[in-house]
Amino acid sequence: MMQIEHGGALDRAMMRFGGKPEDWMDLSTGINPELFPLSAIPPEIWNRLPDQKLLDTTVNAARQYYGVERDAGIVAAPGTQALIQILPQLAAVGEAVIISPTYQEHELSFKQAGWSVSHCQDVKEISQSAKVAVVVNPNNPDGRIVEAKILLDLAEELHARGGFLIVDEAFSDPHPETSIASHAGMDGLIILKSFGKFFGLGGLRLGFALTTHANAERLKTRLGPWAVSGPALFIAANAFSDSRSLADYRSRLTFRRKMLADVLVEAKLCEIGGTSLFSLVKFDQATALYDKLCEQHVLTRKFAYAPQWLRFGLPLDAKAADVLSKRIAKAFAAN
Amino acid sequence: MMQIEHGGALDRAMMRFGGKPEDWMDLSTGINPELFPLSAIPPEIWNRLPDQKLLDTTVNAARQYYGVERDAGIVAAPGTQALIQILPQLAAVGEAVIISPTYQEHELSFKQAGWSVSHCQDVKEISQSAKVAVVVNPNNPDGRIVEAKILLDLAEELHARGGFLIVDEAFSDPHPETSIASHAGMDGLIILKSFGKFFGLGGLRLGFALTTHANAERLKTRLGPWAVSGPALFIAANAFSDSRSLADYRSRLTFRRKMLADVLVEAKLCEIGGTSLFSLVKFDQATALYDKLCEQHVLTRKFAYAPQWLRFGLPLDAKAADVLSKRIAKAFAAN
Repeated sequence: MMQIEHGGALDRAMMRFGGKPEDWMDLSTGINPELFPLSAIPPEIWNRLPDQKLLDTTVNAARQYYGVERDAGIVAAPGTQALIQILPQLAAVGEAVIISPTYQEHELSFKQAGWSVSHCQDVKEISQSAKVAVVVNPNNPDGRIVEAKILLDLAEELHARGGFLIVDEAFSDPHPETSIASHAGMDGLIILKSFGKFFGLGGLRLGFALTTHANAERLKTRLGPWAVSGPALFIAANAFSDSRSLADYRSRLTFRRKMLADVLVEAKLCEIGGTSLFSLVKFDQATALYDKLCEQHVLTRKFAYAPQWLRFGLPLDAKAADVLSKRIAKAFAAN
Repeated sequence: MMQIEHGGALDRAMMRFGGKPEDWMDLSTGINPELFPLSAIPPEIWNRLPDQKLLDTTVNAARQYYGVERDAGIVAAPGTQALIQILPQLAAVGEAVIISPTYQEHELSFKQAGWSVSHCQDVKEISQSAKVAVVVNPNNPDGRIVEAKILLDLAEELHARGGFLIVDEAFSDPHPETSIASHAGMDGLIILKSFGKFFGLGGLRLGFALTTHANAERLKTRLGPWAVSGPALFIAANAFSDSRSLADYRSRLTFRRKMLADVLVEAKLCEIGGTSLFSLVKFDQATALYDKLCEQHVLTRKFAYAPQWLRFGLPLDAKAADVLSKRIAKAFAAN
């Protein structure tokens, strides 16, 4: 089985480079380092099974937040990953194409389900025999964006072949102009939304699929009842509806991203892509720099398929950005 | 598709009988009404994806708490239900037998996966053609207990036929003497554990499968990474290890159950079964009494297949028991 290097690899880095968790700056994920303000969770939300009313409230709030029309269905799941695990079951086994490079969970899931998986760099290169295509938009790690018209045409084409298009919008929240959520409900289109990344609540496990009502029912049947925790539904319903906190939270994210860009410019690290939640830099000795940064207790993400790339997540605040800047300087000095 | 009446049906009861949530005493579930004391959840548990170390810590604590040997595998899932959804995938489609009556989720899942499902009242009646059997032990709603030796022999027999035995121990925590968790790891045996029922945290969504290492790996692959939320793992790891709080919590549960029994005796409602988490009473006009209790804003559980049965969950404390007693008296007076 293929070995996937997940984010949150801090434990492995500590084993190799020492230090305690509090010594490290973990920038290896694309999760907002600031938690969206948590509402107090009533005891009955912990105690009771999450009931239909709570689920409906959250799904309706998600509908409004993502801009999904009534003629589309929405499925809440315990993380986008739970949806990725079952999406291959929505069509008879065939050929799936992943627009690459991107993160590897889609490929693994289709392969485990018996699909043949191929890769291409551009949607124009998708073979006529492919039944399913996966586009992460904006893409992780390079931030590449595919425009709406191309995606909608592709969904139509794949539907005509008995398949569908998966548009994984895990990183679209800070870039709503890239989202095609308003088109959810058209045949052949499945859009995935991650709650945890933008809202800084990756531990909560909550994701959504936006698709036709028929597909939504099939996904719900596979997930079964009470799939998402009560606290996750409760927190998300409040977050989606709290437009004042959301505006402030968005602006702090923008500021945080600007700080990261400034740090990278100062370090003469060339940014070649990214989203509001991470930056991708290109550097000839990136793999060596990754190790040097680990020695300074800064964990970034490296990529086996692109040894000249490093991905940086966001520092929490100005103080963290300053520490990052100094540690990068030390890492270079050690070179 | 079969219509399942789930617990947490308070919303539907309010639509029919009026009242606000705070007016109602919801005794329709088998969940402990007292939350196990929640430990403060560190921000990084909310923020980060639940990492391997957190998962290992919780699974090791579960191993100790349930008394599972090293030669067995443990799988953590977002609720027992998430495991019920995928168990039919562990063998080629065939015939499954559910020891009945019991709760309906197992049957529905096997049927959805294309299995033929039959029922019998006693494990001795299981047909030779059955590949899988499901025993809820102690059973919900009648509390019937099947002894260990019979279950272990059955697991061996089903394994020889290429199948397995599912022992659902959702209600065994207060009755550890009924558990066969120490036998987990033998071929053909899959034991399910629910975290939320005994610990009063049904909203948290956490359950475990105890089985062979090989089955555990197959279930993990189907669930995918980060299946359980960080808060659920963190809270459970602490709860499993907190033996002092556990002892007090257990004794309060025993007291609570005694109060319910006293209320039922006083009301001349004849208890015919149950567990530490609920009581099953038999009453000729149970369906009418269910409605009368709803008029008093007491929600119990009724059973379409046994119209003379009512199941009562636990009142939280002496005050709640007193209110329940008075409302039952009023319901009878209205008859």
